[in-house]
Amino acid sequence: MSELRVGIAGVGVMGADHAERVVRKTSGARLVAVSDADQTRAEALAARLAGGSPYDNVRVVEDPLDLIAADDIDAVILASPGFAHAEQLFACLDHGKPVLCEKPLTMDAASALRVVEAEHKLGRQLIQVGFMRRFDPEYDALKQLLDSGELGRTLLLHNVHRNKTVPPSFRSEMIVRDSMVHEVDVARWLFGEEITRITVRTPKPTSLVGDGVLDPQLAVFELASGAMADVEVFVNFQVGYEVRCEAVAERGSATIGLGSGVFTRTGGQWGGAMPADFRIRFEQAYDLEVQRWVDATVRGEIDGPSAWDGYAAAAVCEAGIESLSSGRPVDVALADRSKILG
Amino acid sequence: MSELRVGIAGVGVMGADHAERVVRKTSGARLVAVSDADQTRAEALAARLAGGSPYDNVRVVEDPLDLIAADDIDAVILASPGFAHAEQLFACLDHGKPVLCEKPLTMDAASALRVVEAEHKLGRQLIQVGFMRRFDPEYDALKQLLDSGELGRTLLLHNVHRNKTVPPSFRSEMIVRDSMVHEVDVARWLFGEEITRITVRTPKPTSLVGDGVLDPQLAVFELASGAMADVEVFVNFQVGYEVRCEAVAERGSATIGLGSGVFTRTGGQWGGAMPADFRIRFEQAYDLEVQRWVDATVRGEIDGPSAWDGYAAAAVCEAGIESLSSGRPVDVALADRSKILG
Amino acid sequence: MSELRVGIAGVGVMGADHAERVVRKTSGARLVAVSDADQTRAEALAARLAGGSPYDNVRVVEDPLDLIAADDIDAVILASPGFAHAEQLFACLDHGKPVLCEKPLTMDAASALRVVEAEHKLGRQLIQVGFMRRFDPEYDALKQLLDSGELGRTLLLHNVHRNKTVPPSFRSEMIVRDSMVHEVDVARWLFGEEITRITVRTPKPTSLVGDGVLDPQLAVFELASGAMADVEVFVNFQVGYEVRCEAVAERGSATIGLGSGVFTRTGGQWGGAMPADFRIRFEQAYDLEVQRWVDATVRGEIDGPSAWDGYAAAAVCEAGIESLSSGRPVDVALADRSKILG
Amino acid sequence: MSELRVGIAGVGVMGADHAERVVRKTSGARLVAVSDADQTRAEALAARLAGGSPYDNVRVVEDPLDLIAADDIDAVILASPGFAHAEQLFACLDHGKPVLCEKPLTMDAASALRVVEAEHKLGRQLIQVGFMRRFDPEYDALKQLLDSGELGRTLLLHNVHRNKTVPPSFRSEMIVRDSMVHEVDVARWLFGEEITRITVRTPKPTSLVGDGVLDPQLAVFELASGAMADVEVFVNFQVGYEVRCEAVAERGSATIGLGSGVFTRTGGQWGGAMPADFRIRFEQAYDLEVQRWVDATVRGEIDGPSAWDGYAAAAVCEAGIESLSSGRPVDVALADRSKILG
Repeated sequence: MSELRVGIAGVGVMGADHAERVVRKTSGARLVAVSDADQTRAEALAARLAGGSPYDNVRVVEDPLDLIAADDIDAVILASPGFAHAEQLFACLDHGKPVLCEKPLTMDAASALRVVEAEHKLGRQLIQVGFMRRFDPEYDALKQLLDSGELGRTLLLHNVHRNKTVPPSFRSEMIVRDSMVHEVDVARWLFGEEITRITVRTPKPTSLVGDGVLDPQLAVFELASGAMADVEVFVNFQVGYEVRCEAVAERGSATIGLGSGVFTRTGGQWGGAMPADFRIRFEQAYDLEVQRWVDATVRGEIDGPSAWDGYAAAAVCEAGIESLSSGRPVDVALADRSKILG
Repeated sequence: MSELRVGIAGVGVMGADHAERVVRKTSGARLVAVSDADQTRAEALAARLAGGSPYDNVRVVEDPLDLIAADDIDAVILASPGFAHAEQLFACLDHGKPVLCEKPLTMDAASALRVVEAEHKLGRQLIQVGFMRRFDPEYDALKQLLDSGELGRTLLLHNVHRNKTVPPSFRSEMIVRDSMVHEVDVARWLFGEEITRITVRTPKPTSLVGDGVLDPQLAVFELASGAMADVEVFVNFQVGYEVRCEAVAERGSATIGLGSGVFTRTGGQWGGAMPADFRIRFEQAYDLEVQRWVDATVRGEIDGPSAWDGYAAAAVCEAGIESLSSGRPVDVALADRSKILG
Repeated sequence: MSELRVGIAGVGVMGADHAERVVRKTSGARLVAVSDADQTRAEALAARLAGGSPYDNVRVVEDPLDLIAADDIDAVILASPGFAHAEQLFACLDHGKPVLCEKPLTMDAASALRVVEAEHKLGRQLIQVGFMRRFDPEYDALKQLLDSGELGRTLLLHNVHRNKTVPPSFRSEMIVRDSMVHEVDVARWLFGEEITRITVRTPKPTSLVGDGVLDPQLAVFELASGAMADVEVFVNFQVGYEVRCEAVAERGSATIGLGSGVFTRTGGQWGGAMPADFRIRFEQAYDLEVQRWVDATVRGEIDGPSAWDGYAAAAVCEAGIESLSSGRPVDVALADRSKILG
Repeated sequence: MSELRVGIAGVGVMGADHAERVVRKTSGARLVAVSDADQTRAEALAARLAGGSPYDNVRVVEDPLDLIAADDIDAVILASPGFAHAEQLFACLDHGKPVLCEKPLTMDAASALRVVEAEHKLGRQLIQVGFMRRFDPEYDALKQLLDSGELGRTLLLHNVHRNKTVPPSFRSEMIVRDSMVHEVDVARWLFGEEITRITVRTPKPTSLVGDGVLDPQLAVFELASGAMADVEVFVNFQVGYEVRCEAVAERGSATIGLGSGVFTRTGGQWGGAMPADFRIRFEQAYDLEVQRWVDATVRGEIDGPSAWDGYAAAAVCEAGIESLSSGRPVDVALADRSKILG
């Protein structure tokens, strides 16, 4: 397989985002086709992607099951509504197509279990679920820290999950199924075991939400080994988006979601790690530099520091080296830019 | 141009990093060839890239000038030693090849100016210099904040540039030319004007460095409009890598490099912005999720949450919704994993 | 009353601390007497206080009830064991003596209620309980912020209460009665209403504690209006002492215990307030400066910057003003210290 | 000496603040008299202090030299204008009176040196200068950390000193003499050596200041051993009051003024220390609790948690202990407050 040919079923907010991602930010993959119940939306997306990026043509397929079956599609991203997942997942299994399925896997535990069983019967894992926090560098670093045993056994999680606002159609059950579900996966993943018991409590709701919506919610998870997690989910927090997780272990605690990597309290200290190296600190900058250079070059443009910027820096450094040896201020003698560059 | 065909001259630490980046993380570009004075190093890299990523073949070219001239190469990344840049840049200009040139542009101001003039004569900008901080999301956000005028005119920069250690061969002048040069570009770029005067002072050096190396250094830049910047460069800081920049303006200050985005002091408050949205917070997680799914799928594997993870989450959420309505703890009835999955 | 004459019953860790406080850091009060079941301990303390501070004589009284009854004692601090409180509080009420009583008020709710009733019958409030968090500047600022209504109604508290370690004799019930009790008071005080329901859960205990001790504990408080608080109490955290409280309200959250005043998330921002003024920032420094000057002066000494320090600063500033006008470095011509001061 | 009898010369903002401090917050001292060029101001202060605090009578003395000479005054605080200091300091020396003199010691280096010499001739140190940062707990902790040698030799200081605004009468020289002077003392004190050279630079001034005032200023201090400090002083920063000091040493850096104690970067980590103990964390709360209890008791009042608060906490804890053993939620059965307390 030289390049993975991908089809996306469902191109609402999340699916369109994934389509852009496959086209512009993912190497080794090519977006071949999209489908959506709203065909106009799918066509607009395909046109937009083609326009911005001449090296990709994306066709629109009417029926998602045809997309899944298509010979020129190696793998599928499901970003369709949750109620459509079961049928589409079974189709992926039938055609032996690897699939990245946005959460929820299906709408209830019974149908989800049937999917698990069908995949197991196939004898081959094809399904990945979109619990993308496991890929967040902060969560990943937290998981590594806990697994290292450095802090001892993990005892408790305190999780906070806040959205600025959600539409009025977002009901109490959706707070559990669409938001808290991420915390469910985080707890299972970080502890490496199943949740055996859950209590969801509802404090008196915020007044900034429609009648009958129980927001915020406060859940307690109990895990197989006796560990616990408490979780606040508050989807009308007004302030912004916030996801935070503090793991409390026998010899310290570690928090992520503060915007500064893994924040620990251990050994009598609070704090975090310094990057050892410029490549760690500036990895994203290098990636963006090269990607933007590629994109601008394809357009026949420069989108970054120019030769003049290189020259001006050289002139200042020369003066700096003179100042270094003399210990005195040195004027920078720069050529007249307007004479050189017109 | 369907895909940009890239050649890289020089595959030491930085060039090899760029080669990986083009192959694995950059969309719309393909790595066609590499060259290096150390041919063995170039061949090892080409082999490694081919092994990890079957969809890319990279050839090794002996002479960097041949690489620059090659018909199947649209654009060049120069990561060769600084002393080789001038000749290679002139070759790029001769062949009309866009080039991303690692700093320094050339070794001194006079030759750098000749490059600027040659490019200008060509009537077309082809050269971009590798001042990659301009692409760092934090620097970018700082630049936008300062340019917005929200804090008034910028008056001062306080910059800190620290490396954990550098090799003993790293001499006092290199601290200016290879490290401080980034601060030179940052000051020019953030203020949008030229530096007209520089003073470099040398406090009594750290004892953890070879004799005669003046480290740390303390520079003051004066800019055309009368603004100033002070810069600490300390390349044997022992602790880790740290780059920090505080801009002091008429109505507040803004600092980056603390690991938490743009930290401001303005309007009687200190702090930063909350992300409005999960896509901002988890953009990198989504990118990694899809990239790793693509890579694993090509290998015929799963590298993320499985169908079982999707099922287990569904089962917990179902119990949670029951607890939500009853207000009581609810046990999670999970199928027996070993019976289902064997 | 010119100066409050205080007696302290119980001079273990807390009582001895209060004794020092009254003698050395409290204006308008004088420590007249102490009592303790361990008479030797009381005598050692009295001697120590007299030695360090010539202006205070403290007598030792054998029976705490005699101390409470003494004519030359205006008010009492009770730092005796909790089981002794009830009898001593009734004695204070009988003698009309104001009393600051360390928590717990008494050992159970029934006896505490009898104390409340007895005081009420007296028609005069004499009893204050040692819930000292209400006096912590951070808690105080949090209370003011919540009461201001700026963040809307308070919905939830997340409290964390951690000790480095406690003695092996500290049993599960004591975690509730001696540690969690502070969180009980904090929740009642911040919400301004009573707690109507409590659930205490016990995750699998840390292995760094004796058999049978359930540590950490995770409690949920439900308040009269429907608001809630979750509380982690973990008295063998190993790392250090940590008390944290995050209040979640309709339009933002506010956290204290991070060591940086009230940390808020509101209006799309995270952060805190800058002090407006040097007296706020340096209030404690001024207090300490004057107190230490007084103490040193009484001893006939200097304990702070000397006249030479004042002179040296003046010399540097004079040179600085010259540099300000000339724009050049100016050498500081300091007199020869050894010639002047010998 | 049973209690130090203090007189204060000059009761403007700073002197009045010190008067309050001596009366209300300093143990072992009594304020006996004040004087001020503005007699009305002195009388108003004396009346106010007497009103608030029945146990202190303060008389007003017309001539500060009479105050210094008075038999019932053991020690003097000078908070008069700087130009009056020299004469008043000589008077203190003549009468052998210990004196805490607000900075500046005198108005220039020559007169300051005469004061030093006169005190030295007396053979007894009587003069302390009001460089109160040495008493700030954060500066004190920074000094201790640097002196411990843990970070190696200190190489550089980066100091920032910002005021929200100053009156228009605050001229460029005053920025040096009244603001930067604190940084002068901090540098001398932290390095433990004299400053030998100073350069003061003036970036283009903020537009939010009167014509001709050079604000901000950027100074570089060079110390005897070759260490250096750079200092930003910006007295019209608009945002608030900010004083920050970063010490850069051979094996790490330490910053204070961030509101979170000593923030270090060392050993590959950033962060700070956790308090070991509740007495460290809540020292100020205990001090305030007892002081406010004393003050309220003198007034015949309660100013803190009441007996009811003690009872309510006991009732919740009793229910908590029941929940701890049963694992179930337990209702809190509280007596009817209105029936008990009427």
